[in-house]
Amino acid sequence: MPAPHEPTAAEAAALLLAVDASERVRGTTSPNPPVGAVILDAHGVVAGVGATAPAGGPHAEVAALRAAGERARGGTAVVTLEPCNHHGRTGPCSAALLAAGVTRVLFAAADPNPQAAGGADTLRAAGVEVIAGFGADDVESGPLRAWLHRQRTGRAHVTWKFAASLDGRSAAADGTSQWITGPQARARVHVQRAKLDAIVVGTGTVLADDPWLTARNPDGTLAAHQPLRVVVGQRPIPAGAKVLDDAAPTLVLRTRDPREVLDALADRPDVLLEGGPHLAGAFLAAGLVDRVLAFLSPVLLGAGASAVEDAGVGTIGQALRFHRESVETVGDDLLLSLTPNFPSSSEKNHTQGAD
Amino acid sequence: MPAPHEPTAAEAAALLLAVDASERVRGTTSPNPPVGAVILDAHGVVAGVGATAPAGGPHAEVAALRAAGERARGGTAVVTLEPCNHHGRTGPCSAALLAAGVTRVLFAAADPNPQAAGGADTLRAAGVEVIAGFGADDVESGPLRAWLHRQRTGRAHVTWKFAASLDGRSAAADGTSQWITGPQARARVHVQRAKLDAIVVGTGTVLADDPWLTARNPDGTLAAHQPLRVVVGQRPIPAGAKVLDDAAPTLVLRTRDPREVLDALADRPDVLLEGGPHLAGAFLAAGLVDRVLAFLSPVLLGAGASAVEDAGVGTIGQALRFHRESVETVGDDLLLSLTPNFPSSSEKNHTQGAD
Ligand SMILES: NC(=O)c1ccc[n+]([C@@H]2O[C@H](COP(=O)([O-])OP(=O)(O)OC[C@H]3O[C@@H](n4cnc5c(N)ncnc54)[C@H](OP(=O)(O)O)[C@@H]3O)[C@@H](O)[C@H]2O)c1
Ligand SMILES: NC(=O)c1ccc[n+]([C@@H]2O[C@H](COP(=O)([O-])OP(=O)(O)OC[C@H]3O[C@@H](n4cnc5c(N)ncnc54)[C@H](OP(=O)(O)O)[C@@H]3O)[C@@H](O)[C@H]2O)c1
Repeated sequence: MPAPHEPTAAEAAALLLAVDASERVRGTTSPNPPVGAVILDAHGVVAGVGATAPAGGPHAEVAALRAAGERARGGTAVVTLEPCNHHGRTGPCSAALLAAGVTRVLFAAADPNPQAAGGADTLRAAGVEVIAGFGADDVESGPLRAWLHRQRTGRAHVTWKFAASLDGRSAAADGTSQWITGPQARARVHVQRAKLDAIVVGTGTVLADDPWLTARNPDGTLAAHQPLRVVVGQRPIPAGAKVLDDAAPTLVLRTRDPREVLDALADRPDVLLEGGPHLAGAFLAAGLVDRVLAFLSPVLLGAGASAVEDAGVGTIGQALRFHRESVETVGDDLLLSLTPNFPSSSEKNHTQGAD
Repeated sequence: MPAPHEPTAAEAAALLLAVDASERVRGTTSPNPPVGAVILDAHGVVAGVGATAPAGGPHAEVAALRAAGERARGGTAVVTLEPCNHHGRTGPCSAALLAAGVTRVLFAAADPNPQAAGGADTLRAAGVEVIAGFGADDVESGPLRAWLHRQRTGRAHVTWKFAASLDGRSAAADGTSQWITGPQARARVHVQRAKLDAIVVGTGTVLADDPWLTARNPDGTLAAHQPLRVVVGQRPIPAGAKVLDDAAPTLVLRTRDPREVLDALADRPDVLLEGGPHLAGAFLAAGLVDRVLAFLSPVLLGAGASAVEDAGVGTIGQALRFHRESVETVGDDLLLSLTPNFPSSSEKNHTQGAD
């Protein structure tokens, strides 16, 4: 069989469409991954777009094939994840693509789950042209990041987000903190929340701020999808706390063990830790933070609580060092995205007993 | 007289040369401004480059004219500051340009000193084509920034530089701080120091760190120019403190009043405040910081001293807000340059008694 030809411009555009479709369902598909798929007809024209439905519903490829109908025959599928091969609730996507007469498949991320993987081999064996790894970097660090992390490590992906002044304070001397960052940064946080599986805070934040922890639209109304709200700590929280209202489900975990928190969230891989400083310190010290999103405001306070406390660092040689993924300006603020440059919890386990 | 023609590409290149020449003498010319000048001959070819000599020596224009000799006749001068008009120690530069037969002059910043200003008018009156404000933005925020600030406000320009972790700490729990930032950031600090008039710290920094506060080359040798070292505070510092060695002059000011510090530095407009947190807080609270250079390292500490303490902010509404001039990456670190978005000390004075 000749090697597949290089991806075309139409296929590159289809990948952007597929990523966009997957971003729209992020937060609603767990424990399934948020996948996007686009079917191009034999002329390279978009015939169908699909994304993963909530668990039990069709996978992205099936949704896109339904939209394309007969136009899929002789066409191409562009998918953010390797089409599955297993007989789950919906039947293997590889079989669906073959049945529809698709002759070429490009996908971004390979499926690390041995049960589901093998879709590419099945397609190739049936004579379909397959290109793996098409746009893998963007997809693996983007919409599929948390799900892939859970597949590889067995635990949820934790993003710790904080907002602070340039001198690292998240409140002024009297405890006031509204607002350190600007409106653009705050709007960004709400957009992110609506795509999450769970949002975690300590009892300290609930007792101090009584936050809603809901995802809200710019006009203040609730976003269509709400992440699970999780409150961690041994102190009881008042029955009238806003976090206990009907706007979204809430889980109260009366523990101080970050691992117990992640165990309780096994089927919700995309977790945002929103604070405060003590719970963040505990997750950092346990090696359970996979990404830091730091909103830094061009403000100095010179007093007030720090963004993180008690992260297990006693001397400079133990500093928690990070790799800078990106830095961007959001209104007047800076947003840094960082990943740990020190052994994470899972790596620590893997190297235990090594030299 | 017809309007002068637009600046040429050769003149734009000459401006870069002039700025570069001025940067090379920064720190050595006070109380005179560090100026750069380039003479182009009648064909637009560089004939001479000059920069301000230490006080008592020739101004930049005179140095450039000397280098150009007869080639200045019918040529063009490109200068970072309006040529002076006053009979100081060296005679007016406007007269020197006329005597040399220069027929066109472009300069960046206007001289705010009424005694020295008027050079442009003198030249125009003698039939020379003059373009004012050529490259003014770069020069006014660059090599002439501190000097112009002193001319306008009557006091030195203070840059507060700090290095901190993302959670705003400048040392770990046990006081260790070497190193939070990376080698590129530290090298940058030494390059900056060599261009300063003075470098200011509190007694606390001397007692805790015993720093040299010298400008050093990458190989550890002393840079050719050393700024004045200034130690501020009422406690005595040990006779054996490194800051009292022979490598550079040192001024010990047994005061706690930031204004007294600046008064003592009246002839040294380019001042770097290098900390620590309490002295920085005092300068910030007094409205005497004109620029902040923040080196932020992708590190979290979760404990340890903050970069600034007691800046006079009690509640979030009093936060010291800044305007972001620039943000760049320096190795693994971020360097932010910020200017106050709150009334500075001089503005406060100007609006006192207003509604
Ligand atoms: N700027 C920001 O990004 C941001 C975000 C969130 C909060 N905040 C601020 O943070 C402040 C609250 O600070 P905080 O530190 O009290 O909030 P927190 O970290 O949300 O809550 C601390 C509580 O978490 C519980 N906890 C659970 N596991 C823990 C562990 N392993 N180690 C330590 N504590 C654990 C403890 O509660 P029990 O004692 O009940 O066990 C502890 O008192 C508020 O003023 C809020 O405004 C700022
Ligand atoms: N990361 C960085 O960028 C950086 C830079 C410099 C220092 N540091 C760290 O800062 C630590 C020292 O902290 P620090 O705050 O003691 O240093 P500091 O600010 O340099 O010195 C504080 C002292 O300055 C004197 N002072 C003068 N005017 C003052 C005023 N208006 N208000 C308050 N104090 C005034 C006081 O000394 P008297 O009591 O003698 O009057 C005060 O104790 C060291 O560990 C050092 O490593 C970090």
